[in-house]
Amino acid sequence: MPDSPTDLRSAFRSGRVTPTAGLAPGFAQTNLIAVPQDWAYDVLLFTQRNPKPCPVLDVGDAGSRTTMLAPGADITTDLPLYRVWKDGELADETTDVSSLWRDDLVAFHIGCSFTFEHPVAAAGVPLRHVEQGSNVPMYVTDRECRPAGRVIGPMVVSMRPVPEHQVALAAAISARMPAVHGGPVHIGDPAELGIADLAAPDFGDPVTFQPGDVPMFWACGVTPQAAVMASKLPFAITHAPGYMLITDTPDSEYVLEVPDAR
Amino acid sequence: MPDSPTDLRSAFRSGRVTPTAGLAPGFAQTNLIAVPQDWAYDVLLFTQRNPKPCPVLDVGDAGSRTTMLAPGADITTDLPLYRVWKDGELADETTDVSSLWRDDLVAFHIGCSFTFEHPVAAAGVPLRHVEQGSNVPMYVTDRECRPAGRVIGPMVVSMRPVPEHQVALAAAISARMPAVHGGPVHIGDPAELGIADLAAPDFGDPVTFQPGDVPMFWACGVTPQAAVMASKLPFAITHAPGYMLITDTPDSEYVLEVPDAR
Repeated sequence: MPDSPTDLRSAFRSGRVTPTAGLAPGFAQTNLIAVPQDWAYDVLLFTQRNPKPCPVLDVGDAGSRTTMLAPGADITTDLPLYRVWKDGELADETTDVSSLWRDDLVAFHIGCSFTFEHPVAAAGVPLRHVEQGSNVPMYVTDRECRPAGRVIGPMVVSMRPVPEHQVALAAAISARMPAVHGGPVHIGDPAELGIADLAAPDFGDPVTFQPGDVPMFWACGVTPQAAVMASKLPFAITHAPGYMLITDTPDSEYVLEVPDAR
Repeated sequence: MPDSPTDLRSAFRSGRVTPTAGLAPGFAQTNLIAVPQDWAYDVLLFTQRNPKPCPVLDVGDAGSRTTMLAPGADITTDLPLYRVWKDGELADETTDVSSLWRDDLVAFHIGCSFTFEHPVAAAGVPLRHVEQGSNVPMYVTDRECRPAGRVIGPMVVSMRPVPEHQVALAAAISARMPAVHGGPVHIGDPAELGIADLAAPDFGDPVTFQPGDVPMFWACGVTPQAAVMASKLPFAITHAPGYMLITDTPDSEYVLEVPDAR
């Protein structure tokens, strides 16, 4: 497996399919949601009103297949896996959406928690889904996002089991990166979020806990996909959960460097 | 002069007119720009692409005269002074826009640098415009914002003279509040921003320097008004520069509390 963003995107363009967790460490990964221009205002307002699950890193012009986050990329071919939505239902999962792209599609690029995994791991916190070679598990919660026009939907979260003595550390490191979801929205009992069974994620793969691990939940950029479903958008193209755009933007761009004002 | 947000808004509703710098210390003040729904996407995207001058704190639904930032307020009467724009030109300046409000107007509430003045002053940094009882001076710069659809325009800055030995402190404190423009965009020679004469601000009042003061420039929420002009919006209502909405939201909501992850 290559490890530069350019080479990985090239591999995906050639049809390679793999979740992107752990790939190209040090470079930000992003969630994609592209909607018809007629819906773009409601989606952009939804992200403004729900910045924790939907931190926007870039918005393209209508019809554009490029993003400033990855100048050489074609966003219709360079993700490993896409989902195509019609009337709020999953219509197709495919590795290339170039023939489906439309002049009226507006692409939103939303921060992804994979971006804080690198500094979290660098601090010595084990990432179970990466150890186990699987996609991170994601769950639809019972927390409703703040609606925006026609766009409504629940918050989706990603979950990582973290050794109890490292929970505070993982919370602190991720909290310094609000552009990629920031600190956890919940730590501990999944029932607090209306999640019945951690072994049955709504997206991604189940992950095995090690003794002493505590579940930590972060707001997730799959939230807009849940909104596509709940709002019955006539048409949308998204990444497949866990199969992100790997950008050329260093993770460090999204770390708060707060001046010491004492 | 009353000093609670509610009493101040009530005074403004009754027709009192005064710049709001230094009023209701501890409560955030916001810039207003209301545009027809047809323009709302371009304006919202402009704010997303230019977060330093245009940090959005709330966006209303079309026609709404309320904001979550000040639950009891009527935004068409509770600011001390408004500007009404037609085809990008100033058409009127008035203390009440309730009769001009339209069902298709979308109100954007944008963070204001007055919000960091309180913690800056609390740290011992003198605020010359407040000492002198005048409005903060604002200048149109030669820095173009990143365009969004039909919306273009230059960045506007506010300027405060700060004693040289406190420049670093004022920069550090304001940098902790990105939702209200954050740290300065420039310190020192105004020519770097294309400003020819500090004594002739484009908005607000000139301010007198004390010996040893250095000019500090912060991105300013009047930037959308400059965009209204440059983009020739058919209709818009804004606050008059320096005459802000005083909200019920504590300044402290917008201070980054960054966890120590060492």
